Amino acid sequence: MAIQSSETIAEGGQLADGFAVTPKAVYPGIWCVRLGYPEAIVPSRFRSADPAEPKGLAEVSACPLDVTQWLARRSAQGFTVMIPASDEAYYGLGLQLKSLNQKAKKRVLRVNSDPPADTGDSHAPVPLLISPRGWGLLFDTARYVQFYVGSHHAPGDITASDHGITPVATETDALYGRSSGAGSPIQAHVPHCQGVDVYIIAGPTLRDVVCRYNLFSGGGCLPSLRGLGVWYRAFAQWDQEQVLSIAHRLRDSQMPCDVLGLEPGWQSHAYPCTFAWDSHRFPQPDQMIRQLAEQGFEVNLWEHAFVHPDSPMRPRIGDRVGQWAVFNGAVPDLLDPDVQQVFTDHHQHQFAEQGISGFKLDECDSSDFVKRPWSFPEHDQFPSGADGEQMHSLFGLAYQRAIGDAFEAVDRRTYGEVRSSHAFAAPQPFVLYSDLYDHRDFVRGMCTSGFSGLLWCPEVRHARSSEELVRRLQTVILSPQALINAWYIDGTPWDMDYTQADVQPARRRGRTDESGCSPGVEQTRGICRRVLQLRMRLVPYLYSAFADYLRQGLPPVRALVMDWPNDPQVRELDDQWMFGPDLLAVPIFTGQQTRRFYLPEGRWHDIFTGRVYAGGQFHEREVRLDEMLIFAADGTLLPIAQDLPHITDQTVFDVQVHRFGSPSRTCRLWEDDGCTFDYRRGVFNELHVALSEEGVLKVLRLGKYAGSRHRVGLATSPSVRW
Amino acid sequence: MAIQSSETIAEGGQLADGFAVTPKAVYPGIWCVRLGYPEAIVPSRFRSADPAEPKGLAEVSACPLDVTQWLARRSAQGFTVMIPASDEAYYGLGLQLKSLNQKAKKRVLRVNSDPPADTGDSHAPVPLLISPRGWGLLFDTARYVQFYVGSHHAPGDITASDHGITPVATETDALYGRSSGAGSPIQAHVPHCQGVDVYIIAGPTLRDVVCRYNLFSGGGCLPSLRGLGVWYRAFAQWDQEQVLSIAHRLRDSQMPCDVLGLEPGWQSHAYPCTFAWDSHRFPQPDQMIRQLAEQGFEVNLWEHAFVHPDSPMRPRIGDRVGQWAVFNGAVPDLLDPDVQQVFTDHHQHQFAEQGISGFKLDECDSSDFVKRPWSFPEHDQFPSGADGEQMHSLFGLAYQRAIGDAFEAVDRRTYGEVRSSHAFAAPQPFVLYSDLYDHRDFVRGMCTSGFSGLLWCPEVRHARSSEELVRRLQTVILSPQALINAWYIDGTPWDMDYTQADVQPARRRGRTDESGCSPGVEQTRGICRRVLQLRMRLVPYLYSAFADYLRQGLPPVRALVMDWPNDPQVRELDDQWMFGPDLLAVPIFTGQQTRRFYLPEGRWHDIFTGRVYAGGQFHEREVRLDEMLIFAADGTLLPIAQDLPHITDQTVFDVQVHRFGSPSRTCRLWEDDGCTFDYRRGVFNELHVALSEEGVLKVLRLGKYAGSRHRVGLATSPSVRW
Repeated sequence: MAIQSSETIAEGGQLADGFAVTPKAVYPGIWCVRLGYPEAIVPSRFRSADPAEPKGLAEVSACPLDVTQWLARRSAQGFTVMIPASDEAYYGLGLQLKSLNQKAKKRVLRVNSDPPADTGDSHAPVPLLISPRGWGLLFDTARYVQFYVGSHHAPGDITASDHGITPVATETDALYGRSSGAGSPIQAHVPHCQGVDVYIIAGPTLRDVVCRYNLFSGGGCLPSLRGLGVWYRAFAQWDQEQVLSIAHRLRDSQMPCDVLGLEPGWQSHAYPCTFAWDSHRFPQPDQMIRQLAEQGFEVNLWEHAFVHPDSPMRPRIGDRVGQWAVFNGAVPDLLDPDVQQVFTDHHQHQFAEQGISGFKLDECDSSDFVKRPWSFPEHDQFPSGADGEQMHSLFGLAYQRAIGDAFEAVDRRTYGEVRSSHAFAAPQPFVLYSDLYDHRDFVRGMCTSGFSGLLWCPEVRHARSSEELVRRLQTVILSPQALINAWYIDGTPWDMDYTQADVQPARRRGRTDESGCSPGVEQTRGICRRVLQLRMRLVPYLYSAFADYLRQGLPPVRALVMDWPNDPQVRELDDQWMFGPDLLAVPIFTGQQTRRFYLPEGRWHDIFTGRVYAGGQFHEREVRLDEMLIFAADGTLLPIAQDLPHITDQTVFDVQVHRFGSPSRTCRLWEDDGCTFDYRRGVFNELHVALSEEGVLKVLRLGKYAGSRHRVGLATSPSVRW
Repeated sequence: MAIQSSETIAEGGQLADGFAVTPKAVYPGIWCVRLGYPEAIVPSRFRSADPAEPKGLAEVSACPLDVTQWLARRSAQGFTVMIPASDEAYYGLGLQLKSLNQKAKKRVLRVNSDPPADTGDSHAPVPLLISPRGWGLLFDTARYVQFYVGSHHAPGDITASDHGITPVATETDALYGRSSGAGSPIQAHVPHCQGVDVYIIAGPTLRDVVCRYNLFSGGGCLPSLRGLGVWYRAFAQWDQEQVLSIAHRLRDSQMPCDVLGLEPGWQSHAYPCTFAWDSHRFPQPDQMIRQLAEQGFEVNLWEHAFVHPDSPMRPRIGDRVGQWAVFNGAVPDLLDPDVQQVFTDHHQHQFAEQGISGFKLDECDSSDFVKRPWSFPEHDQFPSGADGEQMHSLFGLAYQRAIGDAFEAVDRRTYGEVRSSHAFAAPQPFVLYSDLYDHRDFVRGMCTSGFSGLLWCPEVRHARSSEELVRRLQTVILSPQALINAWYIDGTPWDMDYTQADVQPARRRGRTDESGCSPGVEQTRGICRRVLQLRMRLVPYLYSAFADYLRQGLPPVRALVMDWPNDPQVRELDDQWMFGPDLLAVPIFTGQQTRRFYLPEGRWHDIFTGRVYAGGQFHEREVRLDEMLIFAADGTLLPIAQDLPHITDQTVFDVQVHRFGSPSRTCRLWEDDGCTFDYRRGVFNELHVALSEEGVLKVLRLGKYAGSRHRVGLATSPSVRW
């Protein structure tokens, strides 16, 4: 019979069966609280890595939250946990493109591709909530958790002052936005289940919570070095010759590029996928890969996981598929290790061994907001025992793992794109992307992704003006992946003449900004080239930031509040971000002739002009189209490399170190072969670059890597020439 | 322990316990199929009326669907029913502002105020799906059902042709919109429960399904006659004197108006509500009501159900409230009959007996898409046993019933507005409304609401131009309630000078159309007056259409496909509607100098010009701002009354009958006292107005009502003068 009334499972530190609710230490500074009877299919079961060394983390002896104050309840709907908290802000819950601070919001953590509003739906929802006061809560569930993040209070908790007479409101915001009084706990409702494991993650600081979570997940990923260069995804209809042609054109026009991405047209059938080359459009893929490699290009291939009957993988998967087709393809049960292995084997033998460097994993999320529901139903049933909801939550994660393993098998690191992810994802060498294409939302993703072990790419597709193109490029080069995704553009975005009306009509669902100034093609191309060159020059700095992600769990891209949790000015700041250890990025949006921005406490240096700005206040500056706003924290030694059209496995970076303020902090540079997993076997170096009081540069190279990837010198100019 | 695997409950006509799945006849042409173990809190338990007489319905002997083909399954997520069907279109699922045809869509029937996309979320989701082939399925559940409406098929059902090579697509629509092959059943997933009663509703036509459902629900509502006049909701900050002043101004300016609506400012506290007059702004409400009554105005009061501590109802409700406050008010457990009675009693004694004619019931829906979640959580718990999800589904219905009962107790019919409703709602004398304010969406609501026993009002608030104001007014007067809702306008919309820039900035979340032509204030006021006068002249026609709704279940406003289910041109037609038995309305949107429209088979008469149009084809016409497009079906005798500034309980309508084509069908006019429930005791008349072959008008008055509300004559002009 149906459960018609609810049942209290835990209250006052006691479980219904009389046992005490006891946080169990599972990692330094992380405790697990078991409430009720958790399900079998949960994210922790499908982790790809063991926890990493708790390197750099402060020791914490006591669990930061008092679980005796929690209330847990079971009902026909599922399992509800209420946790007293009254923090001023909450962060996390995965990639959130529509808001940074989750306080006072209702969040539905559905996996979704195209949320048009700030609902919590996301490509990569993660049931991890983090307080600036220095604690985190991870709900180990593949269900679509509903969070009410300090949004509601009980009628009895309302004080008389909450009911004071107010003027009659005639604005919805005034009516709906009133104070919610005291005592609004965090409510987490986990549907359909009868229990959940909750991980409590200690700080003591917000940043420590994030680092601890990432290390517990296995540490951040270390992409292939070349993956940190420039990416270009080519028009989907181009054939082998046209792909070789764009490669030539990129080199001829001196546009830096390391990775060429091929879209669905490379396959003999897509959608759904055969995962096999189309012999008409690409008659000699091996030859093409070799020719591209000779010019310094890696090749990345698009796919999704829905399997065409003609795919060589199809017979091996058999009936281990979902009950419903997607894009007319079978949905592989990727939570079955054998099915995952079919994907791994195929991608290893057919692609990784042939020199393909990685994959773009499309449409592993879901659809609720588009015209037609293209993904499998939430009530689908898979042979592994997962239903559609659980599968949606874990599908992207399992998919990343299957493809990542193909490259691990050949001892090559990969770097790719993926459209869905979930908990414990930090070790996955994939960046998230989206069709939603609003520039401000894309910038917000830079701020929110870092809280939950996710990487996010604000990729550049089309633009309505050369101004927009430049502004978007300036954003993407300060992201984990400098990707131009021109899959629907028969040409390159910088060769369009934006002064012509309608050269590039509004495309896709995303909003594009209004056109502002539009310089001509030549000038635009020149600006774009310089922007991409800047990316190339930042690769050693960024690669070392990834080494920090790997070993300390510190996200290379993150919201300012992660570094300044006590500064109320950054609590809601979602249009600036930290890039690596020392740089603060201020993106500029189309139409902005001046940009207002905030700098936290301390002194800040414009890396291009050298101008010094006082922190702890807002500034405003005029910005030309070819200007970017990047600030170095006082005391930074910033390593900037020479221009390179692309990186190779043999590249040695000529690094010039720029000094911004004094005394200088030591600059660390990571080096290894850039492409294998030797670093896991201890084969890497760490360069300590320091400036003596006399202004002499000292470089200390520590480690087992026999090669050298950096020649380091002191910059002759005080600021970065651009 | 959690249910980890799913269990088949019914297959091949057999239940898991061995019993056959047997449709049980519950009403002429309606069968109920019990699958599994339904929950206790379901819409049918909270119906307000017994089924009405099956008047006018065709006899149907056999259940139109073969339940032996159904598959039902229970899992940890809830209960899933799969029903084979391959119809070309599906309608219903409650008020759907974003789409008419639900075929191939995923619908989540969450109660919601502000869905920004076509998701199924709605103020009034109703788990009723209707096929143009003449059957309906009602899932008797208060859960947020997920429907996959013929959107998916099993991998095994895909034919080779579904996999034919297609050109490489570079548009998302092309990629995502491909054929979904054969055999896509209807899937309904009812979360959290272990069974559901499914009602199968026979036709034989689509229209019969709707009528049958409405009669089974208790028959359509019959509003108070005066409620069909013009409504004006006044600025929320106005006090008693200002309300009396606007009343004078409406009469002085000869703007018709029957009902004046007061917004939150009438209460001593809102939000949340005390449900008591504010003694400062409204020191003498009885006197004001009397003075307004003397001028022919009824008074309607705004409220929501969230109870302020100072409300006189609060002590009587006690602890029969939800666990979480809304707008700092307690949420009454309206599924508890005693709590409902508290509302009924208070509204009866304090308002209905004082002459208040009705209420606007705000915010009884829910919120997922706004900045702050103002409504109660879905996992809330109420003493009646309902959780928050069930309560959200039924809250609006229970609220309508509580308030409706207050007027039944004093034998006065009411008419009001409500922001949420659900199944079996046809007898409720309330119209739905929304903040979403897109004119095209509002028109679509006219088409979709009628499938599910709902009335919808495309109310007029602000406008960006006088053109938009006029076009929206022209729409609303052909709706169930001719409402101008100026609650945030300190003045009247037709007294604004739209030629001045920014006189009325963009308000609220709704999109407003671009400004087109904008005549001056005087001219605008004149056009608005004529539009409102047309509403008044249509009241006898509309009132009789409501009598059809009452006795035959035929919605007074409905999509064309309800009357022409076999015409493929109207299958997707969501910007025209039927108004009453004979009129077809074509709204005009801002910016349209010409309007393209479709007329179904037969001949059609422009009621203003008399011009005859051939049916079964599209037409296009130039339209001036002061023109409307209303077409009468061939053979219509259209009753048009004289201009009236307002209706009274004594009004006798001078009706001129216009003849459009010949031979003429009989025109029926309903008359009664217009305000009491005497009609339920058989006290009403039906006038049969017919035109003899010689052109002589014959009026036959049948019934027990001693009075006369109509003086009927033959119009001297061939078409309606305006």
